[in-house]
Amino acid sequence: MHTQLRFGAAILVLATAQAGYADEGMWTFDNFPKERVKKAYGFEPSGAWLDQVRLGSARIAGGCSASFVSAAGLVMTNHHCAHSCIQQLSTKDKDIVKAGFYAATPEAEVRCPELEINQLVAMADVTAQVNAATKGKEGAAYAEAQKAATARIEKECQASDALRCDVVSLYGGGQYHLYRYQRYQDVRLVFAPELAIAFFGGDPDNFMFPRYDLDVSFLRVYQGDKPAKLEHYFKWSAAGAKEGELTFVSGHPGGTDRQLTAAELEYERDVALPERLLTLAQLRGLLTQFQERGAEERRIATHDLFGVENGYKALRGRWSALLDKAFFASKLAEDNALRSQVAKDPARQQKYGAAWEQLAKAVAEQKKYRLQLRYVASGAGFSSKLFAHARTLVQGTEELTRPNDKRFEEYRDTDLPQLQQRLFSKAPIYPGLEVEKLTFSLTKLREELGADDAFVKKVLGAESPRELATRLVQGSKLADPELRKKLWQGGKAAVVADKDPMLELARLVDADSRLWRKKWEEEIEPVQKKAAEQIAKARFEVLGTSHYPDATSTLRLSYGAVVGYEENGKKIKPFTTFAGAFERETGRDPFALPASWLKAKPNLDLGTPFNFCSSNDIIGGNSGSPVINKNAEIVGLIFDGNLQSLGGEYGFDASVNRAVAVHSQALLLALDKIYGAQRLVTELRPGK
Amino acid sequence: MHTQLRFGAAILVLATAQAGYADEGMWTFDNFPKERVKKAYGFEPSGAWLDQVRLGSARIAGGCSASFVSAAGLVMTNHHCAHSCIQQLSTKDKDIVKAGFYAATPEAEVRCPELEINQLVAMADVTAQVNAATKGKEGAAYAEAQKAATARIEKECQASDALRCDVVSLYGGGQYHLYRYQRYQDVRLVFAPELAIAFFGGDPDNFMFPRYDLDVSFLRVYQGDKPAKLEHYFKWSAAGAKEGELTFVSGHPGGTDRQLTAAELEYERDVALPERLLTLAQLRGLLTQFQERGAEERRIATHDLFGVENGYKALRGRWSALLDKAFFASKLAEDNALRSQVAKDPARQQKYGAAWEQLAKAVAEQKKYRLQLRYVASGAGFSSKLFAHARTLVQGTEELTRPNDKRFEEYRDTDLPQLQQRLFSKAPIYPGLEVEKLTFSLTKLREELGADDAFVKKVLGAESPRELATRLVQGSKLADPELRKKLWQGGKAAVVADKDPMLELARLVDADSRLWRKKWEEEIEPVQKKAAEQIAKARFEVLGTSHYPDATSTLRLSYGAVVGYEENGKKIKPFTTFAGAFERETGRDPFALPASWLKAKPNLDLGTPFNFCSSNDIIGGNSGSPVINKNAEIVGLIFDGNLQSLGGEYGFDASVNRAVAVHSQALLLALDKIYGAQRLVTELRPGK
Repeated sequence: MHTQLRFGAAILVLATAQAGYADEGMWTFDNFPKERVKKAYGFEPSGAWLDQVRLGSARIAGGCSASFVSAAGLVMTNHHCAHSCIQQLSTKDKDIVKAGFYAATPEAEVRCPELEINQLVAMADVTAQVNAATKGKEGAAYAEAQKAATARIEKECQASDALRCDVVSLYGGGQYHLYRYQRYQDVRLVFAPELAIAFFGGDPDNFMFPRYDLDVSFLRVYQGDKPAKLEHYFKWSAAGAKEGELTFVSGHPGGTDRQLTAAELEYERDVALPERLLTLAQLRGLLTQFQERGAEERRIATHDLFGVENGYKALRGRWSALLDKAFFASKLAEDNALRSQVAKDPARQQKYGAAWEQLAKAVAEQKKYRLQLRYVASGAGFSSKLFAHARTLVQGTEELTRPNDKRFEEYRDTDLPQLQQRLFSKAPIYPGLEVEKLTFSLTKLREELGADDAFVKKVLGAESPRELATRLVQGSKLADPELRKKLWQGGKAAVVADKDPMLELARLVDADSRLWRKKWEEEIEPVQKKAAEQIAKARFEVLGTSHYPDATSTLRLSYGAVVGYEENGKKIKPFTTFAGAFERETGRDPFALPASWLKAKPNLDLGTPFNFCSSNDIIGGNSGSPVINKNAEIVGLIFDGNLQSLGGEYGFDASVNRAVAVHSQALLLALDKIYGAQRLVTELRPGK
Repeated sequence: MHTQLRFGAAILVLATAQAGYADEGMWTFDNFPKERVKKAYGFEPSGAWLDQVRLGSARIAGGCSASFVSAAGLVMTNHHCAHSCIQQLSTKDKDIVKAGFYAATPEAEVRCPELEINQLVAMADVTAQVNAATKGKEGAAYAEAQKAATARIEKECQASDALRCDVVSLYGGGQYHLYRYQRYQDVRLVFAPELAIAFFGGDPDNFMFPRYDLDVSFLRVYQGDKPAKLEHYFKWSAAGAKEGELTFVSGHPGGTDRQLTAAELEYERDVALPERLLTLAQLRGLLTQFQERGAEERRIATHDLFGVENGYKALRGRWSALLDKAFFASKLAEDNALRSQVAKDPARQQKYGAAWEQLAKAVAEQKKYRLQLRYVASGAGFSSKLFAHARTLVQGTEELTRPNDKRFEEYRDTDLPQLQQRLFSKAPIYPGLEVEKLTFSLTKLREELGADDAFVKKVLGAESPRELATRLVQGSKLADPELRKKLWQGGKAAVVADKDPMLELARLVDADSRLWRKKWEEEIEPVQKKAAEQIAKARFEVLGTSHYPDATSTLRLSYGAVVGYEENGKKIKPFTTFAGAFERETGRDPFALPASWLKAKPNLDLGTPFNFCSSNDIIGGNSGSPVINKNAEIVGLIFDGNLQSLGGEYGFDASVNRAVAVHSQALLLALDKIYGAQRLVTELRPGK
């Protein structure tokens, strides 16, 4: 533990003198630092407490968190986590993103076409099994052995499609665990406020605090066409979060990079982040202008634009952290410190010393081939829902002719239920937007690989990007989910026989795509994985296991307190109130409160807390996480972090990094007095 | 000279072993390295030769180069240098950007609304006068003294509006020279090809070689409504450029940063370049999509989009150079070497040693206030032609109430003719595009300074950026040049009395704008200037005067040879031919040859050289420069550099940095056989 603090100390150069809440860490439930919490806050979570919290927590497959909040399958998450569903359920004439949605009766709840919710029911350490399989292997052989071992373990675990079994890598490959989830695919929309209040302040206020957002939606998981009956769920706190109170956040942070080596950090700073940002910036300009074509274009591009602007701001914040010379130097110092610790001990040096150099070489390889990996293998050159379906049909029906452990990961048995849910989804596809996005990405493909690149010539022929995109989108029949289902069920023979132009494109690029994916999976990734594994082992030897692994979309628990911070010499209080929202309102998007709020204003206690911030260590993917008190009661709903939290990707600065949440009182007040959602209020607080 | 090579040597780490043409340098005409050229190529330019070349050279005010090519005032430059004029002379129904233009008779030549052409007629060293004025002064006093001295020198020089007198700073302030130009404001369009061939290959081929562009236009300068009679102009070479031949390029490179200190280079790499690139990327997406609204929107945004894409690609190349670790280290090594040379000598250290630290501090200040300087003082938050006119009217009529030497630089007497030409221009202003650009920049202003910034609140009030932009553009009458002229001539009283909404905005932001400009001009810039001056003096002491100053839009001469290079192990030949253009054609923009070319194909000798590359050291601003042989005859027309030339901003890599030009034979062949422009052919080659 002392060693951890020593290694972590370098980060604190960023912290101001008032730093006192070093509540760092996104901890796994099986290694939660109970004693540390007890020492700091006088409360020690029991094993039963941790089990209850884990089982009350949920993941929205694809990148958000949520919680179960009633015995009848009610799920609470953010509006922005259900935004895609809300948009998919909207039409030109009935835009529930704009108008909001409330199912006043159980019958009015509507199924989301593509949402899957997971509940972590069991975890098991399978490190020994995976390590035994890969022992002594390198490169492609290492990759193949690891793939086979994890596929086998997952397959053995998954008794039915109602389960989802993932072997997850923790501590950069230092440990492998088998996570078993209950899988819910019948997820229905119960409540969503208007986007104008869910995302009040829009992009300007995103990642800012103070804040005034009702970023909530309620969903319900069903089983056998009936609301699922849940044993574990969170109850509501009467008072909600109070200043200074100990808070826990249980959720699925998507990813952090706190243990990167110098070579990886430089690649992030100088190559990966700027390239992604430049692409996002251009796409942002494109979508903003596309929306000006008309009301319907505005509506259908809203979710895409949110995603792009959110990503842009998040990555810019992350990049700024790496461009901070002192912070970057502190990260290099951490890496160097571990490396020197290893070098000091000849036995360790013998075992682990070469890993850094190997990793640096693999990163150089990645840099060299990154454009092909991105534009060809990952399909960034073909940004289109129709193309994504076409690729799934072409690649998937081919992959399914192979045994489970020889397939690309996304076509393994354990992933098929989710894949099919998406492939068969009835969510609308908008040809106009498809053409623009495909034109954009084909143009980028040509720009980045060059007009004279053989692959680019193969794809475009004599056509311009726009001409090709228009021909494919207009000619393709794949917008029809029944057709996609028929082709999928018909398997490879059916797909090969179909001359749909988007399928033709997917076929045309398949060989190159596989070639570059092979390059990545057999030559670059295994070297990186193995080296990271070595470094992780070295870290265990030096630091013990009392540290937390980087986030990997797996369930984590963080602890902290409701506490403000200082910014440019100004104290920021941890709470905002309803009054503040009305003060901030200008009547113009994104600072326009919805009519429902203006109407209800006289009935509201404007002093009610609205949003608050806490020192919990969270990151993207934590959106929708419950904030709970020591009684495991809901006191808030995470929906954001402040600007200063964005550098949390690489290191936690306890003095200013804050999680941002909707207060539980605000949620109830809005449901009750603004939306008249009595059915929900009663369900959340039965007997009150 | 040896010392120069030693300092320059670090750059050569980038050069391959075959490097042999170290033809580095954008030399002033009064310090041209004649002996160096003689040694390398066996030809020594005489003083008369240099005078003739200087007087045959022209500058297009605002950022391009050109040459005089007949006794009757004919001027040759690039199509992209006259693009703004060609677009301004186009209408919805007659798009000469697309169709091209040829004045078959003298009467058909059309005046460009905003072009000014300058010819450098005299140069004088005024370093002593400027230094005497600023001696012993610091900060605001230094800035004021320098401003007063240069304004006085310019004013004394400028006998009439037909002259333009600029005191230019060379060697980063190590020298000041008075440049006197003949000013031509009656500039008429004579010939322009179709954009499709002027910019064949479009953005994908921009900054690439091999290349196939006829990037030329011909203009004519008039005096007293008649073609100007010129004593000095370039004659045409019969054969044009040949492989290995010595070539000179005479032109106005806009700016290089080859002598930056470590602090400045880091600021460029980590702050200035990425921020500009991100903004350009977003604007690029916006304009691309704006063009999809319809044919007219496509037409009116063509020039803007070219500017944005050209800037984006150029800056990305420049940034890549700085992100190259070895190159960046070599630049730091150069800076360190000079610094150590200074430190070694106590007297020098006493005089110059503190400059680096002072410069670093001033750069830190610039970083701190950069958003205000950019968005408020420079007006980047208000990107609109109408706003630019409004600001000129509001600021200019105020400034003109002050004595010449107390005004902002752009309102000095010597600058007024050009300012008035632009202010009174009849070029059309397109309200639709104005709204989009102003909305974009107001949104960026809010994004970068924050929604809660006092200035942002003052500007936007309760309005959204789009609402404000629409109201201002629709409500303003400033699109009318007669009104602008009337207001300007009415002076401050007339402008103050006018309630045009765009004038109101210019007034609203004027105080803040002046405040930040003052911060820059009195607190930051003088420190940077003075420190740079000290470092420049130190460099003179250490290196002598046998080096060239960074480019500053002043006339320079570079020498080199027609020579290919190696790229990814492949030899690139220095010439392309007409045949290559027809091979590259796909029939789709940007690889569609115009109908005139397809029609003329049977009459063309397809083996005729089209474009070529040479080792001349050039940079942005050199566009339109003549390439001449030792007889001072035209052998080509510069229009670009290769990708590898973009890092030339910071250092010249002789092995791969290449200038790209249209071959003189190609120009004649196209005029003759494709465009039937016999009048021009005869004028260029009288008696042939």
